[in-house]
Amino acid sequence: MTEQVSWEELKWNDQGLIPAVVQDAATGDVLMMAWMNELSLRRTLETGQTHFWSRSRRELWHKGDTSGNIQRVLSINVDCDGDTLLVQVEPAGPACHSGKETCFYREFAP
Amino acid sequence: MTEQVSWEELKWNDQGLIPAVVQDAATGDVLMMAWMNELSLRRTLETGQTHFWSRSRRELWHKGDTSGNIQRVLSINVDCDGDTLLVQVEPAGPACHSGKETCFYREFAP
Repeated sequence: MTEQVSWEELKWNDQGLIPAVVQDAATGDVLMMAWMNELSLRRTLETGQTHFWSRSRRELWHKGDTSGNIQRVLSINVDCDGDTLLVQVEPAGPACHSGKETCFYREFAP
Repeated sequence: MTEQVSWEELKWNDQGLIPAVVQDAATGDVLMMAWMNELSLRRTLETGQTHFWSRSRRELWHKGDTSGNIQRVLSINVDCDGDTLLVQVEPAGPACHSGKETCFYREFAP
C-alpha cells in the first residue's frame, strides 16, 4: 500500500509556500512549477482543479481562469522531506501562457 | 528549432538559487526537486552529472557521491519565466535516500 502524508506533515517555507510540480498524467510531460499556499492547496482539493499562489500578484490564482486551460487533478504526491508536491493532472489545454503545452519548452544553452 | 536560453537569462531567487526538477528521461518519472546555485549548475555542466546546493548543509552536493546513484544529465530545459530548470537524466540508481526510485513515492491524503 502506498504511504500517505497528512496535511500536518507538509513543510511550508518561511513565506508559507510549497512548490508544486505539475505533470501531465497521460504524457508524462512536466508542464510547470508554481507555488501553493494553504489556501490554494485547499481550493485545489475542494475543486479538483489546480490553484496556486501568484507571488508577483500576491493573489490566489486558479489556473485556466482566464485561458480556460484548467488542470483537473488526478493525484498529489509529496516528496521524502515533505517540502515539494507533485501534482498529476489532465490539462484542458496548453499549460503555458505562450500557447505551448509545457512551460519548459526552451532549452538551456549556456 | 528549439528556442534557447542563455546563462544570463536565468532568474535566481534572492538567495541566488533556482529550483531544478529532475526527471528520468526513460520512464518520465519525476525523481526529485532540489536547488542549484551558480556553482552547482556550473559543475553540472562541466561533469554531465547533477550537482545541487544543499540549503541545510550549506554546501555543494554531488548527487550520488555517497550512494553511487549519480544522475547523468541528458538535457536541461528552462521554463517560460526563466526561474525553474527541468533536468532530464539517466539515473544510476534510486533517486531517494529511502531507496525508492523517486522521492515522490508518498501520496498526499489530507
